Amino acid sequence: MEEKLKQLKARLREVDNLQSAVAVLNWDQSTYMPPGGAPARGRQMATLSRLAQEKFTDPAIGQLLDELEPYAQELPYDSDQASLIRVTRRDYELALKVPPTFTAEFHEHTALSYNVWAEARPADDFARVQPYLQKNLDLSRQLADFYPGYEHIADPLINYSDYGMKVATIRPLFGELRDRLVPLVEAITAQQETDDGILHRAYPEDKQLEFGRRVIKRYGYDFERGRQDKTHHPFMTKFALDDVRITTRVQKNNLNEALFSTLHEAGHALYELGIDPALEATPLATGTSAGVHESQSRLWENQVGRSMPFWRHFYPQLQDMFPDQLHSVDLDDFYAAINKVQRSLIRTDADEVTYNLHVMLRFELELQLLEGELAVADLPEAWHERYQMDLGVRSHDDRNGVLQDVHWFAGSVGGAFQGYTLGNILAALFFAKALEAHPQIVDEMVNGNFDTLHRWLRQNIYCHGSKFTTSELVQRVTGGSLTIDPYLDYLRTKFGELYEL
Amino acid sequence: MEEKLKQLKARLREVDNLQSAVAVLNWDQSTYMPPGGAPARGRQMATLSRLAQEKFTDPAIGQLLDELEPYAQELPYDSDQASLIRVTRRDYELALKVPPTFTAEFHEHTALSYNVWAEARPADDFARVQPYLQKNLDLSRQLADFYPGYEHIADPLINYSDYGMKVATIRPLFGELRDRLVPLVEAITAQQETDDGILHRAYPEDKQLEFGRRVIKRYGYDFERGRQDKTHHPFMTKFALDDVRITTRVQKNNLNEALFSTLHEAGHALYELGIDPALEATPLATGTSAGVHESQSRLWENQVGRSMPFWRHFYPQLQDMFPDQLHSVDLDDFYAAINKVQRSLIRTDADEVTYNLHVMLRFELELQLLEGELAVADLPEAWHERYQMDLGVRSHDDRNGVLQDVHWFAGSVGGAFQGYTLGNILAALFFAKALEAHPQIVDEMVNGNFDTLHRWLRQNIYCHGSKFTTSELVQRVTGGSLTIDPYLDYLRTKFGELYEL
Repeated sequence: MEEKLKQLKARLREVDNLQSAVAVLNWDQSTYMPPGGAPARGRQMATLSRLAQEKFTDPAIGQLLDELEPYAQELPYDSDQASLIRVTRRDYELALKVPPTFTAEFHEHTALSYNVWAEARPADDFARVQPYLQKNLDLSRQLADFYPGYEHIADPLINYSDYGMKVATIRPLFGELRDRLVPLVEAITAQQETDDGILHRAYPEDKQLEFGRRVIKRYGYDFERGRQDKTHHPFMTKFALDDVRITTRVQKNNLNEALFSTLHEAGHALYELGIDPALEATPLATGTSAGVHESQSRLWENQVGRSMPFWRHFYPQLQDMFPDQLHSVDLDDFYAAINKVQRSLIRTDADEVTYNLHVMLRFELELQLLEGELAVADLPEAWHERYQMDLGVRSHDDRNGVLQDVHWFAGSVGGAFQGYTLGNILAALFFAKALEAHPQIVDEMVNGNFDTLHRWLRQNIYCHGSKFTTSELVQRVTGGSLTIDPYLDYLRTKFGELYEL
Repeated sequence: MEEKLKQLKARLREVDNLQSAVAVLNWDQSTYMPPGGAPARGRQMATLSRLAQEKFTDPAIGQLLDELEPYAQELPYDSDQASLIRVTRRDYELALKVPPTFTAEFHEHTALSYNVWAEARPADDFARVQPYLQKNLDLSRQLADFYPGYEHIADPLINYSDYGMKVATIRPLFGELRDRLVPLVEAITAQQETDDGILHRAYPEDKQLEFGRRVIKRYGYDFERGRQDKTHHPFMTKFALDDVRITTRVQKNNLNEALFSTLHEAGHALYELGIDPALEATPLATGTSAGVHESQSRLWENQVGRSMPFWRHFYPQLQDMFPDQLHSVDLDDFYAAINKVQRSLIRTDADEVTYNLHVMLRFELELQLLEGELAVADLPEAWHERYQMDLGVRSHDDRNGVLQDVHWFAGSVGGAFQGYTLGNILAALFFAKALEAHPQIVDEMVNGNFDTLHRWLRQNIYCHGSKFTTSELVQRVTGGSLTIDPYLDYLRTKFGELYEL
């Protein structure tokens, strides 16, 4: 059996090598590639992705998994070996169901669709991209249909990013969250609007980046095992457990942009960097799900990086770095500015309180599209109506309406948005649990020390990689199931104090 | 036949996609990769290289080549199609002769050997790396033996980089060159030594890089189709015909370093960027040989970048950029400094006149090793003796002796050095031909204009990619065969004037 396991790992390592190479090519494309490189880069990534898929769905892997099954049954569920065999089988069977020709067609179409969207968005031209979105939707339905027996047509698509989550469980959760968030937003926006003008003074870009790097080093991000580069749309990417990189963007007149995107991507990176090295180059060497991954980016960005204890330590340093801009601004005003709540049109600029309203309406709309309850042609207007209803604002164009997010245009319609809100819910759940176990975390933050928090997250979440599903992990960490209460407690406490509710 | 050709090209494109991905991974490793990324990067590149090799030696490619042979016979020799079929067959048959297990063993050993060398060199510890070099030599002999029927055991190794060249033709050529260079070096070094202290003043690094970029833009290097990054050992790399990148290194107290390495690598890049786009993603989309490639880097570095007409244009700009360092230095003194001839120990720092003496003694030594005339244990002393004999200098250590170049430790012993001197010979040959066709090239250089020269090189050399062998190309361009006369004329004229011989 040792020999079979060795063979399986060798095959999985080959797949990992190909996938990691795709990640390097993608990182280069997003950071340094000159414009001329684009056409060839598309075909290079397509070839490598296809080979990775071919190698992963090789019947020899199925054969090895079958042979290893009895061995896995005798081992503890959470052992490296049993987990490897279990999770690999799950991913293998998911991958096998989709014919390679469909995968190729889908990738080819979404690449095209992405390019059309990238031109249609600045031109505010939904009509131009509409037929591509229609085809994306048709293909997304076909993709779901390769997994017959689903409860809801979105379930197989959700499975790709948040394995085991279902519309039947997410919808009521989101419904309850929405019902409880809307009054909070109303109460806050009834107050006087916060002035955040101080964040939009002129902040030299290199200093902004230097400050962000200083913070994430304190978080425990190790520049010997990663690096930060500039890009248009920040992301985290992993080439190996010891090479996990982040990207950011920086705007001279927006102190939020580089700083919080840096903390956010560093959170994703800390997760990957904390995976047990024994899991390297296997399907276990990644985060559990989109939701759990997002919980870590949001935790380090918000629960830590937008908290008062954090800024008690770092605000004097920020003032030292930008004396002209901040010396006369006191901590409370700065803290209020970075936590300003407002009804707005753009998801990525949204504050912690309204953010989920942006996400959940997208989730609802994509379900309606998949269900056939909403036609693509009617989507722009449906978007405006939902924004009016949930956020009380309405865009005058589609550029800041339905065209603002890339997701539906560059991938499947369905499965992309729920992770953002699940992440927020999980961030609060995990953070509350960490504080319960180690109340000194708050005092440590005031001293710029994140060791206890980081260690707790590594031991309870990061080290496991993707051994467990989201629900299993929540069960292990909290002893219960997914609940929105800690998240609402967190928001009510923090913003209740800020807005004196 | 159109269909067969299409199938062949599709297979070759897949190989190219894999090879280009390896190039991206290698570029990243040499420029931006954090230290932690190294172990995984090794296995990623190994997997991709192996897959490229497997795909290229797929019997289906042999089958297609067989079927296309009659078609190729009816087409002009220099047509894209006939050239593609001919050159692919040549490379295919070369690749087929070596068992994949050997290739894997060889790569594994050289990767190990490289690491040992990288530690042994600064420690000046030849004994440490000696067994690895011995194995490199043994494997190089085995590699050659996969091509039975050679005249000299080095010929198959030379074929990899300079196809069609043989020891029987190179040795007499180099012998003659050496006989004619040695008196020139003696005559020059009998003169008073040039003072090049001005090149070692403090030159801010970013300004040095800016100046180099300015020059290569005038050469025609297009930053929309490439970029320049910093590295330890400068190189040029190609990911596609529209993404050809260069790297450089910069030293504050050495004006030569960044500038001439930039011009050198830009020369390599102009070659690749000038290949006919119709040849993209096939074995024709690369330079003809190591020698012809080096001819272009050396031509743009030396015949152009170390010439008086070039500096008549650029020196005032350099003075403007570095007024404190250069305002009181006149053009003649600057020109003398960048062309200073001296007997030295290090090949990469050598001037145009002595450079080939460094190269040719390495070529001789590797032939003796392969022939069994020289034992690895005796190599360090043989090195010192040859330096004493050819250059009149002797290193007190092996660090600046046999350990100075990576080639024998990171690849085959044999085949790596001849290209440098062939490149110098060819640079002079091609440059003389270009001047003969367009004497105005010199006047254009004085005006900072390189259009006629660049166009002539594109039309006569670059556009063809690797359609022709070195000899075929020389025949087409010059109407004759390879000769050292233009090179010696060039050196004698330039350095005769400089040193008033």
